[in-house]
Amino acid sequence: MKRTCIALTLALASAHAAAADGAFNSAEDAIEYRQAAFSLIKENFSDMWAMMKDKKPMDEKAFAQRAQHLSLLAQIPFTGFDVAGSDKGDTSALPAVWKDRDEFDAKAGQFQLATERLALVTQEGDAGAIKKAFGAVGKTCKGCHDDFKAE
Amino acid sequence: MKRTCIALTLALASAHAAAADGAFNSAEDAIEYRQAAFSLIKENFSDMWAMMKDKKPMDEKAFAQRAQHLSLLAQIPFTGFDVAGSDKGDTSALPAVWKDRDEFDAKAGQFQLATERLALVTQEGDAGAIKKAFGAVGKTCKGCHDDFKAE
Repeated sequence: MKRTCIALTLALASAHAAAADGAFNSAEDAIEYRQAAFSLIKENFSDMWAMMKDKKPMDEKAFAQRAQHLSLLAQIPFTGFDVAGSDKGDTSALPAVWKDRDEFDAKAGQFQLATERLALVTQEGDAGAIKKAFGAVGKTCKGCHDDFKAE
Repeated sequence: MKRTCIALTLALASAHAAAADGAFNSAEDAIEYRQAAFSLIKENFSDMWAMMKDKKPMDEKAFAQRAQHLSLLAQIPFTGFDVAGSDKGDTSALPAVWKDRDEFDAKAGQFQLATERLALVTQEGDAGAIKKAFGAVGKTCKGCHDDFKAE
């Protein structure tokens, strides 16, 4: 059942490449949209990080919910890069996002898959597997930020 | 396959009621989180509304993606109401959210279901059904805002 859902989620997510440029009313809207989505991603990841690093008490139910929401939110930001002119303005996205779009999209896909895996592993409850899957998500964040986001 | 995924999504979503108070570091964090989530919901709904009302050209692929993302985002905001003290401060949530929490949660659930239905119907492509499902989403927004959100 879980695998079926992943397959569906991925199939739906792949629709993003086909979204029309101009789905947003302005480049500013698109920038704000992706920034809001990343802020939600960051909140979930940071809270899980705090629990994983014993900065706050581990709450397994809260962690599982964070992982689930992270996997949903991972689908959201990337349409915000499809809009012409959204490489300019109040954005920390580097020009490489648009110059090397295939690589950017591949890294976005790796991030999405890693969050899906974390959400599933978290449901299964094996602490070692959760730690590994959480680390893998962090690596996909960093791997993309290194190349595509200004510090 | 789609129904299986809905069942899973709903099962996972129901975990939200069990999330620990204090999953956010502060009431302000929780308020910002739910507001960011609602801003993303609004962007998707508004763009679909513009297409449905001929305010901008209908782009079926973009519409379908919006519908799918709306259904994911509908799962997100409500943990932000679980945090003590988040009824105060920079929020337009009315005290009724906490006073009548069962009703609020029920309306949140109706909204989530309506967005799931819209996402599925949109994939099936029947214009009349899409219009009906879109209207139903709008009603769940209004139905909740009337009772639980300051104007």
